[in-house]
Amino acid sequence: MTDIDPQPPPKVLWRDLLHAALQEDLGFRDLTSEALVGDGVETVASFVSREPGRVAGLEIALEAVRTLDDRSVAETLAGDGEDVDAGAVLARVRADARALLAAERVGLNFLGRLSGIATATRNVVRSIEGSGARVVETRKTTPGLRLLEKYAVRVGGGFNHRYRLDDAILIKDNHIALCGDVREAIRRARAAAGHTVCIEVEVEDLDQLEIALAEGVDVILLDNFDLPALEEAVRRTAGRAVLEASGGITPERAAAVAATGVDVLSLGWLTQSAPALDVSLDFQAA
Amino acid sequence: MTDIDPQPPPKVLWRDLLHAALQEDLGFRDLTSEALVGDGVETVASFVSREPGRVAGLEIALEAVRTLDDRSVAETLAGDGEDVDAGAVLARVRADARALLAAERVGLNFLGRLSGIATATRNVVRSIEGSGARVVETRKTTPGLRLLEKYAVRVGGGFNHRYRLDDAILIKDNHIALCGDVREAIRRARAAAGHTVCIEVEVEDLDQLEIALAEGVDVILLDNFDLPALEEAVRRTAGRAVLEASGGITPERAAAVAATGVDVLSLGWLTQSAPALDVSLDFQAA
Amino acid sequence: MTDIDPQPPPKVLWRDLLHAALQEDLGFRDLTSEALVGDGVETVASFVSREPGRVAGLEIALEAVRTLDDRSVAETLAGDGEDVDAGAVLARVRADARALLAAERVGLNFLGRLSGIATATRNVVRSIEGSGARVVETRKTTPGLRLLEKYAVRVGGGFNHRYRLDDAILIKDNHIALCGDVREAIRRARAAAGHTVCIEVEVEDLDQLEIALAEGVDVILLDNFDLPALEEAVRRTAGRAVLEASGGITPERAAAVAATGVDVLSLGWLTQSAPALDVSLDFQAA
Amino acid sequence: MTDIDPQPPPKVLWRDLLHAALQEDLGFRDLTSEALVGDGVETVASFVSREPGRVAGLEIALEAVRTLDDRSVAETLAGDGEDVDAGAVLARVRADARALLAAERVGLNFLGRLSGIATATRNVVRSIEGSGARVVETRKTTPGLRLLEKYAVRVGGGFNHRYRLDDAILIKDNHIALCGDVREAIRRARAAAGHTVCIEVEVEDLDQLEIALAEGVDVILLDNFDLPALEEAVRRTAGRAVLEASGGITPERAAAVAATGVDVLSLGWLTQSAPALDVSLDFQAA
Amino acid sequence: MTDIDPQPPPKVLWRDLLHAALQEDLGFRDLTSEALVGDGVETVASFVSREPGRVAGLEIALEAVRTLDDRSVAETLAGDGEDVDAGAVLARVRADARALLAAERVGLNFLGRLSGIATATRNVVRSIEGSGARVVETRKTTPGLRLLEKYAVRVGGGFNHRYRLDDAILIKDNHIALCGDVREAIRRARAAAGHTVCIEVEVEDLDQLEIALAEGVDVILLDNFDLPALEEAVRRTAGRAVLEASGGITPERAAAVAATGVDVLSLGWLTQSAPALDVSLDFQAA
Amino acid sequence: MTDIDPQPPPKVLWRDLLHAALQEDLGFRDLTSEALVGDGVETVASFVSREPGRVAGLEIALEAVRTLDDRSVAETLAGDGEDVDAGAVLARVRADARALLAAERVGLNFLGRLSGIATATRNVVRSIEGSGARVVETRKTTPGLRLLEKYAVRVGGGFNHRYRLDDAILIKDNHIALCGDVREAIRRARAAAGHTVCIEVEVEDLDQLEIALAEGVDVILLDNFDLPALEEAVRRTAGRAVLEASGGITPERAAAVAATGVDVLSLGWLTQSAPALDVSLDFQAA
Repeated sequence: MTDIDPQPPPKVLWRDLLHAALQEDLGFRDLTSEALVGDGVETVASFVSREPGRVAGLEIALEAVRTLDDRSVAETLAGDGEDVDAGAVLARVRADARALLAAERVGLNFLGRLSGIATATRNVVRSIEGSGARVVETRKTTPGLRLLEKYAVRVGGGFNHRYRLDDAILIKDNHIALCGDVREAIRRARAAAGHTVCIEVEVEDLDQLEIALAEGVDVILLDNFDLPALEEAVRRTAGRAVLEASGGITPERAAAVAATGVDVLSLGWLTQSAPALDVSLDFQAA
Repeated sequence: MTDIDPQPPPKVLWRDLLHAALQEDLGFRDLTSEALVGDGVETVASFVSREPGRVAGLEIALEAVRTLDDRSVAETLAGDGEDVDAGAVLARVRADARALLAAERVGLNFLGRLSGIATATRNVVRSIEGSGARVVETRKTTPGLRLLEKYAVRVGGGFNHRYRLDDAILIKDNHIALCGDVREAIRRARAAAGHTVCIEVEVEDLDQLEIALAEGVDVILLDNFDLPALEEAVRRTAGRAVLEASGGITPERAAAVAATGVDVLSLGWLTQSAPALDVSLDFQAA
Repeated sequence: MTDIDPQPPPKVLWRDLLHAALQEDLGFRDLTSEALVGDGVETVASFVSREPGRVAGLEIALEAVRTLDDRSVAETLAGDGEDVDAGAVLARVRADARALLAAERVGLNFLGRLSGIATATRNVVRSIEGSGARVVETRKTTPGLRLLEKYAVRVGGGFNHRYRLDDAILIKDNHIALCGDVREAIRRARAAAGHTVCIEVEVEDLDQLEIALAEGVDVILLDNFDLPALEEAVRRTAGRAVLEASGGITPERAAAVAATGVDVLSLGWLTQSAPALDVSLDFQAA
Repeated sequence: MTDIDPQPPPKVLWRDLLHAALQEDLGFRDLTSEALVGDGVETVASFVSREPGRVAGLEIALEAVRTLDDRSVAETLAGDGEDVDAGAVLARVRADARALLAAERVGLNFLGRLSGIATATRNVVRSIEGSGARVVETRKTTPGLRLLEKYAVRVGGGFNHRYRLDDAILIKDNHIALCGDVREAIRRARAAAGHTVCIEVEVEDLDQLEIALAEGVDVILLDNFDLPALEEAVRRTAGRAVLEASGGITPERAAAVAATGVDVLSLGWLTQSAPALDVSLDFQAA
Repeated sequence: MTDIDPQPPPKVLWRDLLHAALQEDLGFRDLTSEALVGDGVETVASFVSREPGRVAGLEIALEAVRTLDDRSVAETLAGDGEDVDAGAVLARVRADARALLAAERVGLNFLGRLSGIATATRNVVRSIEGSGARVVETRKTTPGLRLLEKYAVRVGGGFNHRYRLDDAILIKDNHIALCGDVREAIRRARAAAGHTVCIEVEVEDLDQLEIALAEGVDVILLDNFDLPALEEAVRRTAGRAVLEASGGITPERAAAVAATGVDVLSLGWLTQSAPALDVSLDFQAA
Repeated sequence: MTDIDPQPPPKVLWRDLLHAALQEDLGFRDLTSEALVGDGVETVASFVSREPGRVAGLEIALEAVRTLDDRSVAETLAGDGEDVDAGAVLARVRADARALLAAERVGLNFLGRLSGIATATRNVVRSIEGSGARVVETRKTTPGLRLLEKYAVRVGGGFNHRYRLDDAILIKDNHIALCGDVREAIRRARAAAGHTVCIEVEVEDLDQLEIALAEGVDVILLDNFDLPALEEAVRRTAGRAVLEASGGITPERAAAVAATGVDVLSLGWLTQSAPALDVSLDFQAA
């Protein structure tokens, strides 16, 4: 168990998503369990992790069962934020057997994907421990699942970058190209931004960094800087802005990047390519 | 270019999904491009693959742009089903610069994920070429995206397994446990199944295989069989049923599994853990 | 009571439909009951069938009341699948009087339509009893209600044909015309179909039947065959494929068709033109 | 062709319904036409009525095709409100063959049901021609389709009763029972009703009729009156209120009821049990 | 407390609206309360009116809290329809502190707006007390909120005008211009209107009034008549139709207009420009 | 015309809202225009402002017409951001007469409300001209309309405060009470906030202001400070944080508040109580 206390998003923010997923998987009916299992048979099953990892999304998996059987009862043994070993039982559920079988795949699909992201994030966070740097994801999330994937990153010990295009200004190369130069871009941003809006600018070399520092932006994204360049950027910035390293940061490279002294590492990989955690629903022997 | 002709799903099946993804990413507005880019500035940009792979989902990426600028014009150079090298331009778009910037991330999120699945599938399909076996995905798909992920598998040269719980009967270990034994389970399934419904049964050893063959099911899923067991199953079945190998089939093991003579390989990995293809939207220099 | 045990679809599959129907009927408010009935008056009313028939959809009618009064209490006397006489009380409900009055029409509209289909299906099933043939509906269902209408057919003792265009291949005359000939059509279907997909082909004469048999399809639809032709088809097929008779099968003709030895009778009439069962909600005298 | 000019509802009121119906029928894809028909094959097909009737809903059927192929071109030969013979071509469509095949069933389901209602209504209207009475439907409509079914009644030459519970007051037996007596019910209704709200009261005998007349309601519903009682009610009312006959009015009894001099006949049968018109989509021979 | 007994609309009619409002305000999470308040901290807070007024919408505000904390408990002290002084506590809620903080703004936005309308309506109603005239709103409501705003008018002691374009005929100047003249317009309306549909016509002078009276419409809207003209209209009408005064009726002018003897005063101002009531959620000191 | 260039939100963000508003107002049909106006009659009408103000939302009003008549043609004379006099024509539309009549009220409801907010904002902005302070709205917006109301504020020359609870931290009195004290609250916020998240704290007196300054927050909200206190706060802050004055700032008091030297004025009044602009749709004389 970590000292992370990420609040799961309120159900009103993901219930429609869960219901849509159940409809997507059920279609009109679960042919198999209707054919094979008697009506009203109660059973007990366990959500189990087949490999070590950090749990995220358990509540959604349990709600999948509850949606198909509102009298089901669940006991949580290792909830969101817990680190588990292979074979660990996350929760035990008593429910109508048909409902359990019908909810199984959808529940596991949420749980596996979110735990995969949480586990990957945790691993990166651990690998840079002591550096003082933070790990964040990007906007490279799965369409429709951003809410939950950003939550999984927090469960993994990471922080969140922007939620969407309206909650911070992030000036990228394409904006700069369309604006003329980085100084003009920053000035336009400052003139237009609301008074609670943070301004971040992506720079591609140390010259642009100097301009950004001179203009006084809040956050500077160092895009694809190699390690010596990152170190030099940290040295020149000297705390005048938050420095975010980005671009091709794999879990393997994270520690070296963090060691340069940057404040934030952003990894698209976390939400885009982290493998799902292998979880299953095991029915208790009769 | 392959000889695959997968028809992209009609827009009425994914337009709401695309719009929801744009709303998810935009929120109320794109602060940055509104602040930095003049109203009505037209520009040209290219969807580019940064690594070799197979394209899937390009039409959705283009529709993302079109949704924000209905006067945008796109030219497709390498559409769904094409194999491309690193640096390949998939499409060139002329559109309002703000609209392009606002649609960029959503378009790329669809394109990268679907192309990642198509590429992974293609690689597995290639690795078993000549074996006569087919590659299929499972129901381990992303909630809300099953339609598109199953399509991406077809683009990659794979076939589709069940779409949902109502289009075929698949008797698994949990069903058998709840039913008593595999013979009884198959008989109940046959009595209940509609006349257009295929019956598949998962077996865990050769004894169960014999029962399934005796009962005359359409498809038999060999769960976690090792290679010799797969070979023996093929020998005993002798064409009396379709044989599907499943359970821990990684891309690396696929060729060996296919060589046993099974008809179908199913890989949850394709939709659950295949990394996204690295794609970007490059703005033309002014 | 029959020996049918059709599981009602889980609520998550039809709750939105019910809510939409309540919104459609209520608009902003029930002018009449708000004007005439005091706030908080409790009353008891009974769902009654005014003619003999088989009940289907009672749970939806009760949920309509529950949606408008979550403290209402219902007692089911003759639920889905039961055969009732005229005057039979299906359920008794105690609820807020305004809520009952406002939910009445919507509840009855579901109950009457679904019971009408179940009753019609039961009647056809009975008329062919002993023949060994099954009764199925078609895709000629009411837009938006297919889930429930297919369920009502099962309640009536029928089986379901395809749920939609993605769960089985059914090659019809138009496909054959566009393909060239029936043999080519079947071959293309086999090459494209997933390994869990059943292939059915519609034939218009005995020559086409022979081709279909030679190609080894799973199901053959005999379209508008007269009785002698049906008998001849059964004779020639000799169990090599499932035979489905279709086209103009009215309840009156069903027994004769079934007597030819075909396996399945499909009737569009069941969902398209079966009259609603006459049901009402009777308020208990004060 | 009649002199009816019923305006079809604006598309914004039924487009979501049509899209939902297409999604319901398509699922993820049309397996058959994708397998059998080449991509981009154009074809021509005709919507044909197989029996005499009045057309309603043709525009929806054409929009179903257009939704799947936005380049399709349709020519209407006999649109909504026209009376056609068996074999009449209602419209001819040139479209992508796969799109036509995929849209066919949904288009026909709307067209057949709505034309069935329009035809049934027209028949009743004709049977009472010269009586001066109007034919109206009731709220016994299909959940989700009330908008279109009420429209079909107008196409058939009928008029509409209430659209929902908020657009007129209709005091029924249950309300009266809960209120104490009919006079009190009418007075409460008048006190509560908005100034644009019509008040109708259902009476069960001539005594109640006298009270309703004395209270000055706008419309009186004569529930299950036999013919002599209807005549007597007409005589006593003498034009002081609109009289609506209701309860068990079949198409066969309509003329006799209308001959009593009542103003309105309401038939639940029109929307609840009228059989669909038999329509088909015929592909032009290649 | 007044003698008004307006039934609040059933939850099924506004729950989606409330959920959408919570999603609109929350986005992905409440950053502030998650950061500052411990998980599981329970607290008590009171909905308080900071100025005198009439309460409307309290149940929605409480449901906002309940949506985020289904174990919250609320005690209502002054519910919908009550007149309160500045400082009055409307309800006291015990709930999870994070949930209360996250639901606060949405709850207050509904409560403040609806109470503002109810208060404004009550004030107008009071100002014309004794005149016998009714106060109604118009269709100048907030998009999406008409259901609730019309309810708030009833809470304020007003009555409702038309709910939408399908529940009564209201012939306005533009219709008359397109029709030719007012007499022709009324005749067309009568020929087309259903038998439960009220016909109202807007007249611009006494000549048009005479025509409307001669044609026997139900309601006549006197548009922008000055006081002497209203009096003359009342005199000439002599009870033969309901008279509605409209056009620029501010709360200040209402009494004088009512004194002319018209039956109904309609004020767009009530829903379009009435200021919100100042309400707050006060947390109990720790 | 001002030098404001507020980009209207992309249609994908408000089209569903517009369609819902049309459905809300139309119900099943526009009884009046269907009854009175011939099918296919084309007419011309003008959106006119009946009082001076600033236009906002014109595009939505035009899209309302376009939704009901996709062949309508509009010419904009004074679009969003323009200041107009009483009687000014904002746009001229040629469209089907029935469609224009049916879209009228919805179009005007959007246009009137948004122009009302833009006009009110503009007036406040003008009244503080030269002060250097900005005008912003709050989260006291109409449920469902926040997107558009925030846009209208920008059209009026204002800036936007937070969009929702996830895009900035704003520590209020209730948070502080639950946290213990303001210093602790700020520290927790800083520890939890993402690196692009701005932190604002509401202070109630100068002591709290000093703590906030010492802790180095980005923005300080001075809640209900009187003018001398505001001046003192500005003096002490000396540019170290952005100062926002809030609480009871009416349009009348704005200039005096701005003169104190604060950076931002936030007014709930703008979105909560600003009266709608009086706009109409005038049909051209035949």
